[in-house]
Amino acid sequence: MSISRRARLIFLVILACASLFFTDLIDCSGQERISERTLTSQAELFHQFIRSRRSIRRFKQEHLPLEVIMKIVDDARFAPSAGNRQPWRFIVVHKQELVKEMNGVVMWLPGCGPAKGEEPTAFIVVLGEKVNCAFAVENLVLSAHAEGIGTCIVGSVDWSRVKKLLKIPEKEQPFVVVTLGYAMEAAVAEDAAEEIGLRVWKDGAGKVHVPKKRLREVMSVDGYAF
Amino acid sequence: MSISRRARLIFLVILACASLFFTDLIDCSGQERISERTLTSQAELFHQFIRSRRSIRRFKQEHLPLEVIMKIVDDARFAPSAGNRQPWRFIVVHKQELVKEMNGVVMWLPGCGPAKGEEPTAFIVVLGEKVNCAFAVENLVLSAHAEGIGTCIVGSVDWSRVKKLLKIPEKEQPFVVVTLGYAMEAAVAEDAAEEIGLRVWKDGAGKVHVPKKRLREVMSVDGYAF
Repeated sequence: MSISRRARLIFLVILACASLFFTDLIDCSGQERISERTLTSQAELFHQFIRSRRSIRRFKQEHLPLEVIMKIVDDARFAPSAGNRQPWRFIVVHKQELVKEMNGVVMWLPGCGPAKGEEPTAFIVVLGEKVNCAFAVENLVLSAHAEGIGTCIVGSVDWSRVKKLLKIPEKEQPFVVVTLGYAMEAAVAEDAAEEIGLRVWKDGAGKVHVPKKRLREVMSVDGYAF
Repeated sequence: MSISRRARLIFLVILACASLFFTDLIDCSGQERISERTLTSQAELFHQFIRSRRSIRRFKQEHLPLEVIMKIVDDARFAPSAGNRQPWRFIVVHKQELVKEMNGVVMWLPGCGPAKGEEPTAFIVVLGEKVNCAFAVENLVLSAHAEGIGTCIVGSVDWSRVKKLLKIPEKEQPFVVVTLGYAMEAAVAEDAAEEIGLRVWKDGAGKVHVPKKRLREVMSVDGYAF
């Protein structure tokens, strides 16, 4: 076998291997590499992605690009709404002075909030009809997850201060504040065990554990069976 | 060059080409093939996916596998909820006699509902606290979209008949019914033009057009500016 033939063979082997491994770079979650070859289909990849999103409450103090936040809000715009009314408005809070002020108005799940230096680095204030806004907000948090950005939906908010800070008129109906930033904590969902219940808890290493009701507890087929 | 060497070379060429083209099979939307190489990142693929979901109201009369519907409900289970309470229940309606009955209890957007022979082929009845359920329902419809299944969230429902049909106790709070099936219509989102407003409309070919408020109408940065 001549050197050139051997070289061609080696080149092709490398190309084939590289191409096969290329699918390993696919990473919808932005947090964890998923080997595509272990999945039976692209839908499976999506199921893994959507199940891997967790609320994040401790953030790296890194700048979030405004254009990425705008893409996330753009995805929310395509959520369904009753009668296609789209009764929502989003105020992105990105300027550092305002972000600092916003950090004083959101109230966290007890024992899970950020310490000093772990606060969200941006916010999206959501105004409008609650149920329709909720569809859009779920798009927001999934879209952020796809961008590798952690979020938490916060309903306990000092709205009078937010309205003053962002000059929101009285007529607007406040819904929630979505906090954003690159995650500085890991969080996992687990089947809820009876002795723990649904309380979110942290282990010794600071990892957040989120107990989820089992499928059989929340789903029945062809009739009510709970 | 011997035949076996030539065969190995040809095999490797095919393998390399097949591997390179494999990424073309990625198809989150279940409706339209997207070439991964044309996208700058996996997040872009997600943005395309989430924006391509539309409500579907006319369905092929094809059987939906129960195990796929269960996967979709499983994704809903991982949605966020206030205090991690997960105040939701999902009743899958899959048995043909029940599906037929359910088709009599949902009320459609005027002029957009299915004709005879275009009805949904399965339903998910959602019970629980409205806002938290809405987060989960958005997961449902996106997950169905990933499986190539069309959905519509219907709030106008004859709940007394549903409760009787599925033996739902009075204490349960009804939220919405999600209709499911393989799409028999195309639907696109478009920037809303002033003369059309937000009304969903159909063109001569039966394609559904969904006007969406522009980003600048629903988003402002660092303060309320609408």
